[in-house]
Amino acid sequence: MSVLSDVSAFFTPRSIAVIGASDDPTKIGGRPIRNLLLGGYEGKILPINPRYQTVQGLQAFASIEDVGQPVDLAIVSLPAQAVPDAVAACAASGVKAAIVFSAGFSEASAEGEEAQRRMEASARASGMRLLGPNCMGTINTRAGVLATFTSGIVEAAPQPGRISLASQSGAFGSHCLALMRERGLALNLWATTGNQCDVEVSDFLAYMAADPNTDVVIGSIEGVRDAGRLIEAFEIAQRNKKPMIVMKVGTSDAGAAAMASHTASLAGSDAVFDAVAKRYGVYRATSIDELMDVAYACSRGHLPDSDRLGIVTVSGGVGVLMADAASEVGIALPELPDKTQGDLRALIPFAGTRNPVDVTAQILNDPDLIEPMLSLLLEAGNYGSVIVFLSHLGLNPAIIAKLLPGLKRVSSRFPDRYLSVSLLAHADVRAELEESGYTVFEDPNRAVRAASALARFSASFGEARPESLPLPVPADARAGGRYTEAEGKQMLAAAGIPVTQEEIVTDANAAARAAARIGFPVVLKIVSPDIAHKSDVGGVLLNLADEAAARAGFATIMERVSSASPGSQLDGVLVAAMVPKGLETVLGVVKDPLFGPVVMFGLGGIFVEVLRDVVFRPAPFGVAEAREMISQVRGRAMFEGVRGAPPADTDALADALSKLSLFAAANAETIASVDINPFLVLPRGEGAIAVDAFIETVAAEAAPAETVLV
Amino acid sequence: MSVLSDVSAFFTPRSIAVIGASDDPTKIGGRPIRNLLLGGYEGKILPINPRYQTVQGLQAFASIEDVGQPVDLAIVSLPAQAVPDAVAACAASGVKAAIVFSAGFSEASAEGEEAQRRMEASARASGMRLLGPNCMGTINTRAGVLATFTSGIVEAAPQPGRISLASQSGAFGSHCLALMRERGLALNLWATTGNQCDVEVSDFLAYMAADPNTDVVIGSIEGVRDAGRLIEAFEIAQRNKKPMIVMKVGTSDAGAAAMASHTASLAGSDAVFDAVAKRYGVYRATSIDELMDVAYACSRGHLPDSDRLGIVTVSGGVGVLMADAASEVGIALPELPDKTQGDLRALIPFAGTRNPVDVTAQILNDPDLIEPMLSLLLEAGNYGSVIVFLSHLGLNPAIIAKLLPGLKRVSSRFPDRYLSVSLLAHADVRAELEESGYTVFEDPNRAVRAASALARFSASFGEARPESLPLPVPADARAGGRYTEAEGKQMLAAAGIPVTQEEIVTDANAAARAAARIGFPVVLKIVSPDIAHKSDVGGVLLNLADEAAARAGFATIMERVSSASPGSQLDGVLVAAMVPKGLETVLGVVKDPLFGPVVMFGLGGIFVEVLRDVVFRPAPFGVAEAREMISQVRGRAMFEGVRGAPPADTDALADALSKLSLFAAANAETIASVDINPFLVLPRGEGAIAVDAFIETVAAEAAPAETVLV
Repeated sequence: MSVLSDVSAFFTPRSIAVIGASDDPTKIGGRPIRNLLLGGYEGKILPINPRYQTVQGLQAFASIEDVGQPVDLAIVSLPAQAVPDAVAACAASGVKAAIVFSAGFSEASAEGEEAQRRMEASARASGMRLLGPNCMGTINTRAGVLATFTSGIVEAAPQPGRISLASQSGAFGSHCLALMRERGLALNLWATTGNQCDVEVSDFLAYMAADPNTDVVIGSIEGVRDAGRLIEAFEIAQRNKKPMIVMKVGTSDAGAAAMASHTASLAGSDAVFDAVAKRYGVYRATSIDELMDVAYACSRGHLPDSDRLGIVTVSGGVGVLMADAASEVGIALPELPDKTQGDLRALIPFAGTRNPVDVTAQILNDPDLIEPMLSLLLEAGNYGSVIVFLSHLGLNPAIIAKLLPGLKRVSSRFPDRYLSVSLLAHADVRAELEESGYTVFEDPNRAVRAASALARFSASFGEARPESLPLPVPADARAGGRYTEAEGKQMLAAAGIPVTQEEIVTDANAAARAAARIGFPVVLKIVSPDIAHKSDVGGVLLNLADEAAARAGFATIMERVSSASPGSQLDGVLVAAMVPKGLETVLGVVKDPLFGPVVMFGLGGIFVEVLRDVVFRPAPFGVAEAREMISQVRGRAMFEGVRGAPPADTDALADALSKLSLFAAANAETIASVDINPFLVLPRGEGAIAVDAFIETVAAEAAPAETVLV
Repeated sequence: MSVLSDVSAFFTPRSIAVIGASDDPTKIGGRPIRNLLLGGYEGKILPINPRYQTVQGLQAFASIEDVGQPVDLAIVSLPAQAVPDAVAACAASGVKAAIVFSAGFSEASAEGEEAQRRMEASARASGMRLLGPNCMGTINTRAGVLATFTSGIVEAAPQPGRISLASQSGAFGSHCLALMRERGLALNLWATTGNQCDVEVSDFLAYMAADPNTDVVIGSIEGVRDAGRLIEAFEIAQRNKKPMIVMKVGTSDAGAAAMASHTASLAGSDAVFDAVAKRYGVYRATSIDELMDVAYACSRGHLPDSDRLGIVTVSGGVGVLMADAASEVGIALPELPDKTQGDLRALIPFAGTRNPVDVTAQILNDPDLIEPMLSLLLEAGNYGSVIVFLSHLGLNPAIIAKLLPGLKRVSSRFPDRYLSVSLLAHADVRAELEESGYTVFEDPNRAVRAASALARFSASFGEARPESLPLPVPADARAGGRYTEAEGKQMLAAAGIPVTQEEIVTDANAAARAAARIGFPVVLKIVSPDIAHKSDVGGVLLNLADEAAARAGFATIMERVSSASPGSQLDGVLVAAMVPKGLETVLGVVKDPLFGPVVMFGLGGIFVEVLRDVVFRPAPFGVAEAREMISQVRGRAMFEGVRGAPPADTDALADALSKLSLFAAANAETIASVDINPFLVLPRGEGAIAVDAFIETVAAEAAPAETVLV
């Protein structure tokens, strides 16, 4: 796979040249050499600096051309103005990949942006991959590749582990590096991408998701250029059942404003990014604590095989708190079977035996109970995950020493479950629990959140990926305009979406005949490519009861519209059936500049207009995903029927949503937006129908959305 | 104040008897003696155990009667069956306060509950305050009173500090005790209340809120018996501008179910508890981390004088993350004035200068910039709080040493601001920052949340307390029934709430005359105490245009209702004006079993029925609070006018809500519920009007809500 080998030179180079190498190991040009020595890198380190014979004890070269041997990776640490020539020289010398530390490019000025473009062009021309500029480089702990000047490495090289991290921001990457060390989370690969002139976070995420030494992938994303690449990375992670946790900042208006001032990125539609991440089972963290907690829980190496969470607590009150937290993050706490509850009470007379299980202080009087009690839960309760809250007992060596043997026997007997302990503990107790296979969290709510994240990964990895979806034939393109309602409906009908029955007529008698064919009562609406809001110009007549009314109606509409909108092209009048009563919903397609066509769904009226109660999904998708969308609007109770209304035909709705997504995907190049409003959902068994539809095409002159960032 | 002196014996006793004293300092009856000795308690310790001459080196007594000196506080640590007699003996001997550690009472069985009631009665009879049973006792660190067997004290007595904590659950109280020690949060008073047969958490919260050695009060509440006492505690805290942070578990259905299995408590209306806490500026935490974080931030001793938060960051990405977090918790990040932004750029050329301020890695190259930069923010930006994100720099001794002097000078120059640093740091750096007046948080989002909590306290303490609200004269009581719509409306009109104009008539001609007086068109509605849903029995006629229609309508209604609802008492027909178009809202009063009359407000239709978009406020309240309620419904945009509707008269709505709250408070004893639906809010300047109203009275036989728990 050429794509994967592309960025491998950043992690497994056989030789590394450092252009602008410094003899001072604290300078930016000196740090990577110091780090490579510190990390025990076994490849060749080739310092390049015309002013030195040796650098930090290594033979130095005057230029990349003087090296006289193949260079896999070059690090460029020079003043900004000298960088483009150095990059060009690397490209010309057959260097496979280059990292530019230097700042002063697109983030700084227009000239900097221009210089960055030149660098990119020379790299592209030779096939050399280019990382940065304005980045902090890469790390591969197993190979001792510390090709970075990050201040996150202070005294020792990071211990090799199985978590890999890619961050656009070097500062954020460095922070995580230090934090992971503090938390004992061992790293495999690490990369920062800075201005992302060539390689972006997605490239590394894809590589890490495929890397056999990586169990967990962390990404910090600010801007995305190539959405396809990002989705590919997400897909690889999901296919490989490898948890991927991303942070994408700028979710709020305040955050987006801060972002605009921070990078050149435009804040894209956060809801769309969220929908994409959800579809691929990528976990989105909203705080650094959450990012690290979930990565830590995942790093135990296996996921629970069910989302059933059991909670055991020595404090009833904290049990309730944890149940609240479980409800908040959306993980269920199924109760124990009645028989098991009885068995538990036989073990611990005053125990709360539902779920959470409150073992009371009795467990301190008789610590041997911990093993049979947990075994009962795991066997009879069949929980995929169990969290045991032990309060501050980890600070009490005498008590915890009596509990640890039982805990250890349980974890070795149930190696496939996710077992977690929440307690305050001294470091040695914590280490002992972790060695026995438990995760350890001080805060019980955070333990619950992490368990819920694992359950979500499990569920996502267990889902059958949708079969490849058959797209309809694309509709005829029409550059830069709108389709009439009638054309729009024909297109949707051809794509399998039910629309109201109707005909276009151009004289009054034809209107009367069409009405007779369709059946009374009918509606008349003006047909014009120039008129978006038909009612505003008197272009709609409702509830016409017979042929005479239809005939007269045609004349009325033409007269009104001609006087209200004199210049408009009038193509005729649409004669349509009056629609039955149903629940008003809104279906739409928007073309996200990054992720392409995205289907929107919401309930009509105030749900959309006041509450912005809408959900998104990238097109195309199947009926199962459509059902999920329907279940995610806040007003979903409407579908069950309120105020005496009958339950609505959500099968028909889900089918239409999926069909709309296929239509949107098939016409991604030409259609800018679709607005079906209202889409009426009839009572269960009676179907659903598009009453009005409005389709806009992509403006002919619009540039391809290549450089748009989220 | 007798109430306060009441529980003071638990914290400042001159002598403490331990009934069931053990010579073994690890037994429950031995631990309080060991702890009192450990704490250096200077009062008399009086072990009581007929089997010993001395206990842990102290002279022992055979019984409380044998002590021969006044006992302020008695600790009872005996088998459950021996406890009631011991408590009775204490009461008879003039003991001021007793703590019962023993379990096996109301939490265990009906007999236990009975025994508990007997204990309570003997205590009440003598005026002795009784804590527990099934509790862990109390601590006063300054006096060395460690009247507890908590396992949260292991080797040393807690260091005296200025945070006090009261918890119903002993396990939770012990957990917090250990956690506070781990986090360096020093304790003043601590109390656990267990089964709360007499003293409850509220009593201690009130005492702590008034205590001069307490700066911050933490409460953990599971059940409340005396809501008035809880509100009194909240009021004292607010009056004394003392931050109070409470945890009340059981917010979710899952949590409430877990609670039912854990204690005898019934989960009450969580939304009402929330409304009460908000009104008094009490901060409600939903995790232990949050509880401790906010207490820690408050324990610095002063609150910011404004809610303006400024953020400084060395990582642009983390700045965006923090801006997202600020938006999430609802604290604004006002921008710096343009001039100040220019001044900042003069200091740090590539800085992001809005808010967050991104000082980039430049601050590392020139650490002296930290002082002028922060001074600029605090002076010209006038932020009440500033958080500085310094990533992992606290792990790098060389770099942080260069930043600390500037940080220190800033904090001594601006002693009234809330200054916080978020960073990874070694313990000594953390301590140095804290000594200089900074709070230190590892996680930046948690730093933001804590700052936001302080801003909320500031705002609440700065609010003028509502003037005492003049209640209307109570309406005539009617036990156990409903008022008719007409009676209900009259009562509301008398309370100053606008209602539709109307008259009750008993014959057809009177209906015609009344209609002429009111003005056409009119509505007719049946008046009957037996009929709740008038439309269902044909008891409503709309839009009658003239006298003849009104006359005929009377006959129609009487005929229909008589046949549909033969046994009902019919008091006549209401003639009312047709109401103008307006925004439908719902106003209500429910009598919370604990907090008494609570006013509910929501928008009509799906907002209430599908989205449960309602807010509560305990009655009575003024117009300012009513406005707050209106601003808190999710559908608030409706008041601005959507779909071409004009803005609504929220002044009239707020006035009606406040008046309804006064009415509810004045009639708290007799009125069980009020339902005004719809209450129409007309366009701005045109008022608002109750169209239908339904008032229910308290059933005559209903027991007073004494023992209801939340």
